[in-house]
Parts: sequence; structure tokens; C-alpha cells
Amino acid sequence: MFDALFNPKSVAVLGASEREFNIGNRVVKNLVEYGYTGAIYPINAKVDALYGQKTYASILDVPTDVDVVHVAIAARHVPQAIDDCGRKNVKYLIMNGGGFSEIGPVGAAIEADCIARAKKYGIRIFGPNCQGVINTDPAMKAYCNFTFTFPKPGHVSILSLSGGIASLLHQAIFDMGIGTRLYATNGNACDISIPELLEYYGNDDKTRVILLYVEGIRDPKEFLRVAQEVAAKKPILVMKAGRTMEGAKAAASHTGGLAKEDLSADLIFEKAGMIVFDDEEKLCQAAAVFASQPVPRGGRVGMICNTGGPAVIATDVLVQNGLTIPPLSEKTQAILKESLFPEAAINNPVDVLATGTGKHFRITLDAMMEDDGIDSILIHFVTPPFVNTNEIALEIAEVNRQKRKPIICNFMTDKGQWQETLRILSEGEVVCYDFPSTCGKALAALTKYGQIRRREESAVKTFADVDRRKAEAILAGVATSGRKLLCADEVYGVLSAYGIPVAPWRTAASPDEAARHAAQIGFPVALKADTPTITHKTDLGGVILNLADEQAVREEARRMAVTLSGQDLKFLVQKYLPGGREIIVGAKADDDAGHLVMAGLGGVYVDIFKDINFKLAPVTAAEAEVMLSSLKAASLLGEVRGEKAVNREAVIEIIQRVSQLVTDLPAIAEMDLNPVLATVSGCVVVDAVIHL
Amino acid sequence: MFDALFNPKSVAVLGASEREFNIGNRVVKNLVEYGYTGAIYPINAKVDALYGQKTYASILDVPTDVDVVHVAIAARHVPQAIDDCGRKNVKYLIMNGGGFSEIGPVGAAIEADCIARAKKYGIRIFGPNCQGVINTDPAMKAYCNFTFTFPKPGHVSILSLSGGIASLLHQAIFDMGIGTRLYATNGNACDISIPELLEYYGNDDKTRVILLYVEGIRDPKEFLRVAQEVAAKKPILVMKAGRTMEGAKAAASHTGGLAKEDLSADLIFEKAGMIVFDDEEKLCQAAAVFASQPVPRGGRVGMICNTGGPAVIATDVLVQNGLTIPPLSEKTQAILKESLFPEAAINNPVDVLATGTGKHFRITLDAMMEDDGIDSILIHFVTPPFVNTNEIALEIAEVNRQKRKPIICNFMTDKGQWQETLRILSEGEVVCYDFPSTCGKALAALTKYGQIRRREESAVKTFADVDRRKAEAILAGVATSGRKLLCADEVYGVLSAYGIPVAPWRTAASPDEAARHAAQIGFPVALKADTPTITHKTDLGGVILNLADEQAVREEARRMAVTLSGQDLKFLVQKYLPGGREIIVGAKADDDAGHLVMAGLGGVYVDIFKDINFKLAPVTAAEAEVMLSSLKAASLLGEVRGEKAVNREAVIEIIQRVSQLVTDLPAIAEMDLNPVLATVSGCVVVDAVIHL
Repeated sequence: MFDALFNPKSVAVLGASEREFNIGNRVVKNLVEYGYTGAIYPINAKVDALYGQKTYASILDVPTDVDVVHVAIAARHVPQAIDDCGRKNVKYLIMNGGGFSEIGPVGAAIEADCIARAKKYGIRIFGPNCQGVINTDPAMKAYCNFTFTFPKPGHVSILSLSGGIASLLHQAIFDMGIGTRLYATNGNACDISIPELLEYYGNDDKTRVILLYVEGIRDPKEFLRVAQEVAAKKPILVMKAGRTMEGAKAAASHTGGLAKEDLSADLIFEKAGMIVFDDEEKLCQAAAVFASQPVPRGGRVGMICNTGGPAVIATDVLVQNGLTIPPLSEKTQAILKESLFPEAAINNPVDVLATGTGKHFRITLDAMMEDDGIDSILIHFVTPPFVNTNEIALEIAEVNRQKRKPIICNFMTDKGQWQETLRILSEGEVVCYDFPSTCGKALAALTKYGQIRRREESAVKTFADVDRRKAEAILAGVATSGRKLLCADEVYGVLSAYGIPVAPWRTAASPDEAARHAAQIGFPVALKADTPTITHKTDLGGVILNLADEQAVREEARRMAVTLSGQDLKFLVQKYLPGGREIIVGAKADDDAGHLVMAGLGGVYVDIFKDINFKLAPVTAAEAEVMLSSLKAASLLGEVRGEKAVNREAVIEIIQRVSQLVTDLPAIAEMDLNPVLATVSGCVVVDAVIHL
Repeated sequence: MFDALFNPKSVAVLGASEREFNIGNRVVKNLVEYGYTGAIYPINAKVDALYGQKTYASILDVPTDVDVVHVAIAARHVPQAIDDCGRKNVKYLIMNGGGFSEIGPVGAAIEADCIARAKKYGIRIFGPNCQGVINTDPAMKAYCNFTFTFPKPGHVSILSLSGGIASLLHQAIFDMGIGTRLYATNGNACDISIPELLEYYGNDDKTRVILLYVEGIRDPKEFLRVAQEVAAKKPILVMKAGRTMEGAKAAASHTGGLAKEDLSADLIFEKAGMIVFDDEEKLCQAAAVFASQPVPRGGRVGMICNTGGPAVIATDVLVQNGLTIPPLSEKTQAILKESLFPEAAINNPVDVLATGTGKHFRITLDAMMEDDGIDSILIHFVTPPFVNTNEIALEIAEVNRQKRKPIICNFMTDKGQWQETLRILSEGEVVCYDFPSTCGKALAALTKYGQIRRREESAVKTFADVDRRKAEAILAGVATSGRKLLCADEVYGVLSAYGIPVAPWRTAASPDEAARHAAQIGFPVALKADTPTITHKTDLGGVILNLADEQAVREEARRMAVTLSGQDLKFLVQKYLPGGREIIVGAKADDDAGHLVMAGLGGVYVDIFKDINFKLAPVTAAEAEVMLSSLKAASLLGEVRGEKAVNREAVIEIIQRVSQLVTDLPAIAEMDLNPVLATVSGCVVVDAVIHL
């Protein structure tokens, strides 16, 4: 797939004007100047040639079939042009021009017409309102794009709807001297989608790292499926903008796209195993490391410096990101003690001093490479005017070429004066940054990628004891009745069908029946108004806890019957269970991404501190455990003031069962088990709401 | 002060070796090559001249008095050299060499000897173990430093103990084309201190912005005093490293400095009105804006772009930092509607489109300058290959020269191909960055500075109704008895002396007396064991709440007398006040910075969520209000579930009184009023602890 798009044998350009300030003109110029190895067919009836390429009056005049046609003509002429392309067996259109769905209904209608016609001919559309693609392969050199950054071949591939940001990222890695592999920015993306392109990048052997920028995720399920597949093979560095309401509005206005809630985007990135950035500069900087360095086995960093300050800053950044700067092995320390200056700091960070020579750096690097307690190396290399810095650079470069453990270098100097030192590092493919924080953040990202690659992919557990049919039947009944909110017996019926433990309960039509049920359940009981028309029962006096006898149940039920009359009222009588810690488990349907499952502690923890964690369904046991352990109030699930820890496995099982429930029953819009009472022995749901 | 250090008439260099890889040699070379306008005296008995400068065998042979002497000789020879300098009326020593307190006791002894001798001659010491100073003034060109970055004159001054980081920051602003004003990095700082240098920078007219890097604050009170004074005149951009335990350890090991708790550093920065950064790259980037742009009157940003994506990212960054991108005035919109392309977005952000010309940018800029609803302007300027980008740059530069409102430009291009456009922007002093996030963060910092300059400096209120003598007498009594922990009557006595409302209380020596007191106070009462040897009374059954009659008080007191026997036990009887919201107010002595005053909500809010805010004493009413309003659970002080809001003024008054108390009584190490019960009518302390 997409081979003819990224490796076209021939490219035609509709709208190849002789005017310079023009998209079509620029595409032809770029193809020629970048050295495209295929055939170029500028379509222009007025001149004979453009940039040395013979022109044709019409695409129909072109002598061969055409793989890719750039469309840089007014939107209203495009549908007809597509018919012409169809007759030339064109495979891909790169529709650079604007005037389509991004400008409103008129443009959207033209876009729809284009899609329909292209489909008829089996032509795939890239764009419209887009820059295009680039393939740096020396055998191809396809610069099918009107931008201006001419990259050298490399291993970083860039993908984005937004042309502005894609070229920004592209320019940044170009400025850092990093090579590009593939580049694609597809604007309105009316046909060829981001997941399709991502899948292609995933299968491209020369792509080592993918930089992805998104403002919204259009087809989250497909996006997640592809991203999971690709991220298992190579790192995807992703940044999402439009995170604030205002940012999302800005995004919507320039792409016409729908801004999705960020929560689900972040959960998708996390589930897929992508590396998320919130600053595009740091993303580009990290790309350098991913493109050239091996993945560390862990987070234990060996640091070498010849001036102390930068190591302090880097230590902060690394530790804040969960990495460590552990003591070196005794053997390493012995080597350093023997070889470095007496005043040198021989523990981690190692300070070889400003007077430290190439030999000192080399001995330290070699020792850290041999030290099993060190996974990666960060060097702070300032160029003191009184040592031979070229010698130091040569040693760093030589060790870096071994690619045993990742090396990142904070090279602190005036690059104008120390050109030769810089050249040596650069030829040695040593990744150099100007700031210790930048080094630390890049190394943290690479280390995180290693963790993701190693993380246990625990399978989703499917509980066999559930009665899906019964639950489906209940929901079908609710739907038939036109309701959105389930009655108590429906809610508890669904939960019971999925093996979720519920406090014993019965519904009653009258106060007398309620009292009888209460006696059967056993006291104390809770009495709750059961009506699908009231959502805030408690506020209306519809929930009475801890009733001790039949008399009390009957009286309270009668009172409710008066205050809540005319509400199609029934009564829920439920075993009252005091004690236990209040937990919330729930789920919420996301438009397209499926359900978000949530868990947290009840009461103020959720009300005030929003101390709740989400995962995308289906949730594995490992994910459920992370949901609990990463709560701010996680300690409250353990032993607290003499009370034993809650039965964690029971909580995790409820989360998994809820996950299975909403996955099986997608009609559920929202469900809240609030509270679930957790004790040392197990969990039981004492109140719950389900909305369709 | 320090005029002869930064503007020396003559500089001698002890240890001016002819060997190139040597500090003294490098200092002479730097002075000569940078064009120092004063006299240079290399001290070297072996050669006649160095870099064209006549050498002298001894400082005593130098023909004139000497303002500054660089000391680049072995540490053990320095004390004798200082005696020689004394005879030449030397004013300042820049002690570049190491081997002093940073290497341990032997070096520390030499350092102490140096300080003593220098003091005798009235010589001030800069360093030791330091790089030195730079003054770029064309009339002076004093490069008294062995580093290698030769700056052009400008308005950014750099200050740091750490030479490595100072030169890192210096190199970064140099690479951005920003000029330097002063530079000082004083290593061990055995004499001339950071606050002294900061004060000098503050009084230097040509310094517009100060970049400060610290790892620890040695004399927090003096630092705060100076920083407050200087920050009121010009922006101080500060970064503190050594924030993590590990980072602090790394800092301590390379400077010998004491790592302070970060909390107090952050409170000092905040109180002084400094702009804090946690990434040195972003700090340097922001410096460019501070050096050249006017301070915005507010946070309302007008955004202009010719491609949409960057505006989305910048919007996120700005909004996350509290800035807004408000709708433009009707007048502005009308102008843009008439003048821009029909497809252009004419609301904020304004997208002039990739085909937008210089005229379009100019009209938009002019309109935003006139629009009273806009305080600053952020431009995303990509260079499409089909417009005249030089024209655009000329218009931006021209508007920027007016300096009416700050302009920041995200200039997205290949600087190699668009050199002329870049030159135009650069000549127009347009601050350009490569990334929208960078622009947004720099503008946010500048806007924050404007807010700090405008913030109301409410005076510290001094309550006249306090009885300081009484409180002092109580503390003196405690001190005399050798105790650290105050008894109940002492605690409540101190609080009452400072007008802090306390639930009515009496102490009793026996159960019977306790019962009698309870009757006088009125029921219900709380009974508490009163003994300075027990800190966790509650855990030992030493606190019983809500006792209804004398009998109950007597029985519980007898029980306590048994369980807590042998503890020098008395009884505190206190009015039991149910209801109200639990608040914590307290204070904690910091080694040198004075007291940190704290406030927050009690119970789980402090135990689990650490939802507590701190300010440095003395605390103003405005600061106390911020302490409350910035609590995560701040809403719980307002109307909650039908309960009226607590009396906020009463809480603020208690915070202020505690602030006055610990300021007056510095012997207090820690005090906790926990809880203070706050209701609609007022506040009352129901339990409190004070440690000396």
C-alpha cells in the first residue's frame, strides 16, 4: 500500500504555472532541484517547458500512465480533472489546493464530489489543502511537496495533518543535522488517513522513529489499532495540541476537524505505547536520540562532566523523570580512583575536572560501559581553553560508535571557535545538545520507550461466568420503554449478570411489601426510592440508611410515597452494610474510542480532588492495578489506622468485570458504582446508576 | 561599590604562564583579544612579554597601583601573594584557581587565611575557584575571565556561583545574537556574595534583565532583601537546581555549599517578585524578550499567523499560563474583513493565509496596536515559497520599532534559504523563535513580570492589641525549664497574648479539679492530657471529646491518670465546639529565611493530599488570601451543601497574627493550630502545639 505514492514512477502537476509564487510551479521546481529520479510532467498549455521539463497541455497528453498527480488548480475545476486522471490510470492525487471542506459547505460539496469520482476510478486522494509527501530515498528523491526544506536521507519520518507543524518539526530536525526518511502531511485528509499512513511508516524498514503531531483523532479505534501495532515495532513520538478549550477551538477553525476530549487521546497514546510530548521543541530534540542510539535496558544513568553545574541540573531532570544516578560498582570506582586526577569526583556523577583529558574521559566511558549497574551515559563536555578538546571528542566518538549503551552529550561551547571538536563529535554520530535539561529529557524519553517495550502485555481477562444474554435482554427492555436511566432492579440485574457483587436487595411496590422484604433480607436495611425519573434521589429524601425494623421501613416508605408522589415510585430495599472504604468504579462511553473505565476513592477524594484514574476498555489486570496504585490517595487502600488493607484483588476484579460489561454492552453511555464498599474480605456495590 | 571590579583601570595576572593550556595565560589572552582598555600586567619572571604585554617578575614591580589582580597560582602560595597585593593597594582579587574550601578542610584553612589577610588590607575577594567577571562596555571591555565566549555589548547580565552554568547561559544568549552587559561567576564566594553582586547589577543602568542561577541560597534574608529591591527595578529570571534530593547532593559535592530546602527558595523568589524557570533553555529564550520588548499591560494576546497549526500550540501554552486570546474589537474585525483575503480568519487568531502579503500583516499589526483589548502580539510567520517574505519582514520590523506593545515572532523557515528575510527581522530587533511553545512561554514570562510589577504591595499589618512581653515571658520560662514542647496553658497563653481566639479552657491538677472547671466552662467539654512529654496524645487515649457532665469528666480524668501515669500529668479542660470546618494554620522556622507560615484544610486534605500553602513571614493580608484561594480544596471554604461560607476575614486574621507571633518570637521552631474551627461567624482554635 502507498508504494506508488511514496515511490512514484512518474509525477504530473496540474496547475504548473510559470509564475514563481505559485504552488504548482514550486512543486515542479522542488522535484527537479531535489533530484527526483522519475518522470515529471508539468501540465501547462502556455509554455513548452518548465525548469527544463517538457510540459503538456493536458494530463491526457502525457505519454505514459501516471502514478501521482499534484492538483494545484482552483477547487471548482478539480472534479473534471479527476475524470481526466481516471482515464490515465492515475493511482494517487496529491490535492495541494484549498477551497474544500475547510472553507464551509460549498467547498465540502466539491470535496464530496471529488471523493466520489476518485473512488469510481480507484484513485486514492491525499489531501486536499495539503503540502504533500517526501521520500528521501536516494533511488527516488521524491519531493512531492511545495515546502522548502531539502532534507538529507535519514531515519526520522514525520506525519501530521497540519502542514505548518509538520514543516516546523521537519525544519527543526534538519537544523539539528538529522536526516529525514519519509514526510507526509495530508491536510483535510478526505480519503487517505493518518492511521493508514502510520501503518505504512510502521512497515517501512528505514523508518526508525516516527514524529506524529495531532490536533484531534478522527477514528480512535482504528488509530489505536494501528498505533499499537506500529509502536510495538518502533518508537512513535507524539504531540497533541488543542488541549485547552481555546486551543481546540483554534484547531477546529483551521482544519474543520472535530476536537476530541484530551482524556481519551492520552489514554489512546498510553495504551498504544507512544511517547507523549507537550513541547514540540523537546519532541524534535528527543528525535535525535531515537534516530541513532540503542534503547537502554533500564534507567540507571552514568554521568560524566568536566564542570559540576550541568550535572546538578541534569540530575534534577532525570530523577524527576524516574531515572537514577546510582553509585558506580566498586570495580569502576577503583579504576577511576587510579586513573583520574586526585581531586576528581569518582562517584556518579564523575567529574574528571576541567583539566581532565581525552584519556580521562575514555577510561571513564569504558568503565561505565563495563559496569552492569549503568544503562546509559550522559556527558557534560565543556571546552576549557586549557585542554585539548579534540582528543576528548575523539574518545567520545569512538566509544559512541560501539553503540553498546546510549550516549548523550551536553556539548557546551562556542561552536564557531570549536568547529573541529564539533566536527569530530558529529562525524562520530554523537548526539549533542546545548543544555543539560534537554539531555535529561531526551534520555528520559528514550528510557521510557525501553520501559514500554519491556512492559508486560497482560492479556485481557474474559470472565466466563457472566450472563451476557440476560444483561442484553434487560437493556433491550429499557430501550424499548424509551428510557435512558435504568431502574434499580435493572441496574442490579445487569451487575449480577456480570458477577459484580451487590448488597442483597429486593424491590417493592408498596410500603408494606418493602417492610416484608426488609425482614427477609435482615436488618439493618437501606430504603431507596426506585424511579427512573429522579437522578438525585438523596437530595429529595429518597435514600434512608440504617433502618432497624419493619415499622421504620414502612413509615419511611410511606413518607417517600407522599414527597415523591407522581414519580412512578417503587422502593428498593437493600441490606445496609456499614464500614469498609468507599471506592468508585465506573465507565463512560467515548464517541468513538469505546469506553473509558474509571476507578478512585469516593467522597471528597473524587468530589474535591478529582482523584480518579481512567483507562480505555478493555482493561487488563495490570492496568487496573495501575489505576489503583497511581491514585494520589492510594495509601488509603492499604493498612490505615489499624484497619487492614482492602482486598485489592477484589477491587481489580470489579474493574475488569465493569470493563467486560461495557465492552459487551456498548449501549451503556455511563455507569457509576458509587460507592463500592471495600473491606479486607472483598467488595460489594451498595449503590449504582446506569445510563444508556 | 564594585566599580573598580567591573571597571578596573588596571588588571594584573598572577600565574601568567606562557603555556597555552593554562588559566593565567588565557586571562591575559582574553583581556588583549577582547580589547581591554586599561593596563594589563602579566606577572611572569621567565619571559619579557605575553601577548604583546610587558611582564613583571612580581606584583611589587608593577609601576602603578592595581585595581584587580587575577590569582591563578597554586593555593598554597596565595596567602603570601595577598600580602604583596596589599602593598600595591590592590582593590579586588579574582581568585581563579582551585584548591580551597571545595576540596576539604586543608583548602578551607587556606581560604580562611586568605580572607583574613585580604581583610587586613581592605581587599575584597572574588572567588576562589571561579571564572571571573566580564564588562562589555565599549569604554572598558574588561574580560577578566578565562572562558571563551566574546559577547557583543547588550543589556542582559548574568550571575551565578556555578561557572559551568553561567557560561552555558552566556553561550546560549550569545548564540541567539543577544548582547551581554555584565557577567560574574564567583565560585566558592568566600567574600563577595551573590546578593552584593545582584545589588550592583540592580544599580547598573545598562542592565535591563538579570539571569540568575542558584543551587542554594546562603543568606536567605539578605538575598530576599536585595532581590526585592532589584526586582522592583528590573526583571530577574531565576533558575534553581538541586531541587531533588539527588540534585542537591550533586550540588553540595561540587560547590561545598549547603543545599537548602526548595520550599523556602521558591517562597523567597515569589516574595521578591522574580520570574522562576525550571528549564535553563526556556530561561535563556525568554531573556531575548525581556531584553528588547516593552512590558505588556495585561495578558490579552493578539495572534497572527499564515498557517494555522502553530497558533493551536501557542494557544494551548498561553491559556495554560493564564493568558487569553480574546475576540478582537468590532472595529479591528471590520478593518480585517475589508482588507484581508475573503478566506482569511479575521478573529483572534487572525490567519492571513499562506498567500497573505506584507500589506496584510501590516494592516493586522496596525489594527492590533490600536485595539485596546490587545496587550501583546504573537506572530507565526512561515515562509511560503509563493509570497514575498522580505516585504512581510519589513512590515513586522517597522511596527516592532514602535515598541508600543511587545511583539514575539515564531519565524518558521530554513534560515539558510531565507537569509535576507531573517536579516530584516534581526535588524528590526524582532525577537524570533523557532517554536510556537517557545514563543508562548517567553510571552507568558514577560506577561507575568508585568503582573508582578503591578501587584499590590499590601503592607504587613501589625496588630497593636498583642502582649508580646507576656508571650516572651512564657517562652523564657519554657526555655529555663529545658523543655522544647510547651504545656497547654503555655500554648494557649501565648496564643491569647497574640489575640488568637481559643476555645475557653482551664488546666487542672486533679480529676476533681477538672470536673469543677468543666462545670464553670459549661458542657459539653473536651478533656485532654496536658503533659509536655507526650506528643501524640490522641493515640494514647489522652484526648476525649464531647463530655456531657462532671461525672464523665472525673471518670475519664481518672482513667487517664492511670494509663498516662508517671508523665507529669495535668488536665486541660476545654469547651467542646462541634461543627465548623477544620482549618490548619501553622508556622515553621527555616534555618535562615525566617518562618514559613502555612494554612490549609485539616483532616485528609492535609494528611493525604498535602493541600497546604506556605508563605514567608511576615505575611500580608493579600498573601494570606492567596494562601486560601490557591488551595485545591478552596471551594470548601465557601458555601458547601447549604452551609454558609466560613468567615474568611477571621481566617486571614489568624494567619496574620501567627505571622506576627513567629516574627516577634523567633525562638518558636514550629507551631500548629490544628484544628482551627471556622464558621460563618468566626474562627476558634481548639487544639494547638508549639515547639521551641
